[in-house]
Amino acid sequence: MMNDLVSPEVLEQVKGWVPYVEAKLGFRNHWYPLCLASEIVEQKPIARKLLGENILLNRIDGTVFCIKDRCLHRGVRFSADLQCHTKNTVTCWYHGWTYRWDTGKLVDILTNPQSVQIGRHNIRAYPVQEAKGIIFVYMGDREPTPLEQDVPPGFLDEDRVIFGKHRMVNSNWRIGAENGFDGGHVYIHRNSVLVEGNDIALPLGFAPGKGKENFRAEIGDEGPTGVWDLLGEHSVPVFAASIEGEEDIMRGHMGSKRVAHTISIWLPGVLRVDPWPDTNTTQYEWYVPVSETEHIYFQTLGKVCETEAETKEWEVAFHEKWVPMALEGFNNDDLKARLETQPFYEDDRGWLNEILYEPDRCIIEWRRVASKHNRGIQSREHL
Amino acid sequence: MMNDLVSPEVLEQVKGWVPYVEAKLGFRNHWYPLCLASEIVEQKPIARKLLGENILLNRIDGTVFCIKDRCLHRGVRFSADLQCHTKNTVTCWYHGWTYRWDTGKLVDILTNPQSVQIGRHNIRAYPVQEAKGIIFVYMGDREPTPLEQDVPPGFLDEDRVIFGKHRMVNSNWRIGAENGFDGGHVYIHRNSVLVEGNDIALPLGFAPGKGKENFRAEIGDEGPTGVWDLLGEHSVPVFAASIEGEEDIMRGHMGSKRVAHTISIWLPGVLRVDPWPDTNTTQYEWYVPVSETEHIYFQTLGKVCETEAETKEWEVAFHEKWVPMALEGFNNDDLKARLETQPFYEDDRGWLNEILYEPDRCIIEWRRVASKHNRGIQSREHL
Amino acid sequence: MMNDLVSPEVLEQVKGWVPYVEAKLGFRNHWYPLCLASEIVEQKPIARKLLGENILLNRIDGTVFCIKDRCLHRGVRFSADLQCHTKNTVTCWYHGWTYRWDTGKLVDILTNPQSVQIGRHNIRAYPVQEAKGIIFVYMGDREPTPLEQDVPPGFLDEDRVIFGKHRMVNSNWRIGAENGFDGGHVYIHRNSVLVEGNDIALPLGFAPGKGKENFRAEIGDEGPTGVWDLLGEHSVPVFAASIEGEEDIMRGHMGSKRVAHTISIWLPGVLRVDPWPDTNTTQYEWYVPVSETEHIYFQTLGKVCETEAETKEWEVAFHEKWVPMALEGFNNDDLKARLETQPFYEDDRGWLNEILYEPDRCIIEWRRVASKHNRGIQSREHL
Repeated sequence: MMNDLVSPEVLEQVKGWVPYVEAKLGFRNHWYPLCLASEIVEQKPIARKLLGENILLNRIDGTVFCIKDRCLHRGVRFSADLQCHTKNTVTCWYHGWTYRWDTGKLVDILTNPQSVQIGRHNIRAYPVQEAKGIIFVYMGDREPTPLEQDVPPGFLDEDRVIFGKHRMVNSNWRIGAENGFDGGHVYIHRNSVLVEGNDIALPLGFAPGKGKENFRAEIGDEGPTGVWDLLGEHSVPVFAASIEGEEDIMRGHMGSKRVAHTISIWLPGVLRVDPWPDTNTTQYEWYVPVSETEHIYFQTLGKVCETEAETKEWEVAFHEKWVPMALEGFNNDDLKARLETQPFYEDDRGWLNEILYEPDRCIIEWRRVASKHNRGIQSREHL
Repeated sequence: MMNDLVSPEVLEQVKGWVPYVEAKLGFRNHWYPLCLASEIVEQKPIARKLLGENILLNRIDGTVFCIKDRCLHRGVRFSADLQCHTKNTVTCWYHGWTYRWDTGKLVDILTNPQSVQIGRHNIRAYPVQEAKGIIFVYMGDREPTPLEQDVPPGFLDEDRVIFGKHRMVNSNWRIGAENGFDGGHVYIHRNSVLVEGNDIALPLGFAPGKGKENFRAEIGDEGPTGVWDLLGEHSVPVFAASIEGEEDIMRGHMGSKRVAHTISIWLPGVLRVDPWPDTNTTQYEWYVPVSETEHIYFQTLGKVCETEAETKEWEVAFHEKWVPMALEGFNNDDLKARLETQPFYEDDRGWLNEILYEPDRCIIEWRRVASKHNRGIQSREHL
Repeated sequence: MMNDLVSPEVLEQVKGWVPYVEAKLGFRNHWYPLCLASEIVEQKPIARKLLGENILLNRIDGTVFCIKDRCLHRGVRFSADLQCHTKNTVTCWYHGWTYRWDTGKLVDILTNPQSVQIGRHNIRAYPVQEAKGIIFVYMGDREPTPLEQDVPPGFLDEDRVIFGKHRMVNSNWRIGAENGFDGGHVYIHRNSVLVEGNDIALPLGFAPGKGKENFRAEIGDEGPTGVWDLLGEHSVPVFAASIEGEEDIMRGHMGSKRVAHTISIWLPGVLRVDPWPDTNTTQYEWYVPVSETEHIYFQTLGKVCETEAETKEWEVAFHEKWVPMALEGFNNDDLKARLETQPFYEDDRGWLNEILYEPDRCIIEWRRVASKHNRGIQSREHL
């Protein structure tokens, strides 16, 4: 009940990345994408869950606001019977406690207009920012950092046009992040529709160089903090497999297009694959913590467009080609991998019992960097 | 497993009403209504759960008996395959252990008639009393108190004719009790079919007077123990709401009938609303603990009837008018409120995190009175 | 999470058979029957769970192998997408880690053929033995004991022909074992189709002799370890029941065939009833731990056959007569008893709260013998 999210027995055995193991509900005081901007329309509040917290979003005169979806009084969700009697407030259906969307301040109680509680309390109101057609929420209590520090390099570039989609996946967010950043898992995609469809070169795996050559941490000053996987530079791609000396068990795909030169992962949990899935596009994808066993898989593709015609063409290609072939056709393999990995880590003992190998060095670095540079651990106290 | 029902971390932070928080499965050594008398017919045992215990009721020569529905030997429920080979006994289907309905004594073991265990053990047999057409069970180990001490004042008056109904609700019993006794929640009923249908005056809420004026504890000597809510006397009913200065957001209903002058709650968890739902009737309703997350909502209405014709008329009105309009039409709003409140209190942290306001003072008094004057806490050891 | 399977509070109150109470997932380092030999066909791996562990079986050139169904790397089940690229190996679908079926050795990693991990690690490979048409798996880490030490006396006799069937039952394995070995539970079978159908003598129960006469432990040196129930010799069968002096409440069946002279139970949890269900057949049945709340009920019947014609006849009788009349008709009563007993023991408090009687003395001896002579307790660390 009052226990933390991870048992002390596990934590005392973890080496090197205790905060990461503790962050079962994600890192606090970071920006997370929640949905597309188009999903939040004027005066139509929607309820969501993020980092284990029920939240409520609304657009008022064009600006999006986000508050905790739980009345201070008796803990019920406003969204169970949504009542907005004035433009700037939401009223709890149970006893009429009324809060402002912008500040979260308790401004009136309809069932007792003279209550001393009025004006004394606030529900949490979380900063919201729209960028690239996406709603970002700052799940934190501090003054929010600039959004640039929580998205991959280049994502916010002015001429980069972003389109995206999102869905719920039934695994912890870290299982998603490590699945994405994991160079070795390319193996599961070897028969993907994308490989033939876009004629890309896709090896079965990578024989990495030695130690630290394979990754590089980048600690953000004005930009984001993350880890670059340098497998592409410092490893030999594996295009043929043998088992116990029996050769040519299977082969990777020697396509004409070289993609995915650089893969990197950034706090609070967003991957950048460049170029991907084509030679002039970049994939940015978030693994947004929802509950201990769920994350939002928020996939976006970006492309530099210089004219409106280019932008239009890119939008059509995104929806008609890249969603079915890449974001679904290719990445659906990853969903299955996350679901299958989840049980091993669900009671946190996977962090102790796993046996990693060379291509996982960049994942270990990611755990270390995330442990050291996150801005807080989401805990039960925040729920 | 052997833990108590509430974590020690929560209990040490609770101020003023620890026993109430502990009483997740209710208070022991009290009378509870279980069902209508007509539901228990001669020699047709029925199985129920109360305060977390599986129990079995039977009517023998007109008298109702109640025993624990679990064999002492291997813990199986008699009701899984009910065997009553003689009028006064029930025999366990597994090994033939046979108990008397009246005392619970183990009187024979069919598979080993010479066993030393025979005559040595008793299953719990709980006292039963029929009153006002309702079966009351005394869930306790002591000599039972008079029923009068566990029902609201007036309920047993000779000329008061009671009719009732009951159903299961998926919340803890205390959520039910506090929802019922809560003066401020009148707000959720403002559009109820009863308001127009019976033309009652129903405000949006109450601006209470100061402190102790608003409630009065009554510690029973020969009668019951409970708390009177004096909001009706010492508060100003709120009939119009404003938000941030914007007036007339909504209005209460200025009906012609004044009802609900006095509201009171009594151990072990029964509300009295008088008069209600009409000017000459009284509602008595119990929130009977079943499991940690379930209670029986046992609603009754009483009316003084002096002739048989009056009684007949009242019976028809109860079923045809007041059940659909009040016990369902009006009180179904409360069911939703209980379901929505349950998650906040389910891990017991709601008791720490709630923020109460003036109309809740009588609820706080109820928690204190219940903590001090209950006759025992139901615990795992009783299950 | 890292807790053991049983709470320390319970264990410190248990007297005399703590290891038995701890063995919620069974005893380690014993042989268990898993399925019929015919169910495992050449190069068609099947996934099962035993003692809480996911395992994978395969037949290669006629020999059956068993490995843990979980990759060392990221803990996923091979069986989620089975890949056997060479005859002697299984390859994990996620990163191509490849293991030998016979030793469990990690022999190759397709995504990084130079990994230092290759050759360094083994998944658990469990010894398998086929006997009497049944696949036995040795769930242990030590050098396996001879199979004879884990099956009832006579089971492996050369001229004894065994047929069997198995199914999953939703109770802990110990509930199954005690239900089978329990002399008093004959009561539930009194109206079984087998009683009339095979005209057997079946009392309602047994009035046992004194103390130690009723059972005899046998601690195996070369053979198995178990307990003989001597109720048949030292007790008076009960053929008529009375309740509170009212006689002839019911009667047992005085059939012409005397069966079940000797009943015995053996580590790691297998019952022998002889003769049963006919005067020249023996029933051997296992309660194989699967999870905390599931066991495989593995029923077999054996008969000495001297010619091939006899064997054929026995096979037909097994399937056409004894499965419907005995293994299902009679023993299905037991399934119900196990399901009903499970909740009482599920949180382990049943071991403290049960009240046993004289016919249970042999069960107590079984608990003691099993506690003292088992070869290990399956724990979370093995999962």
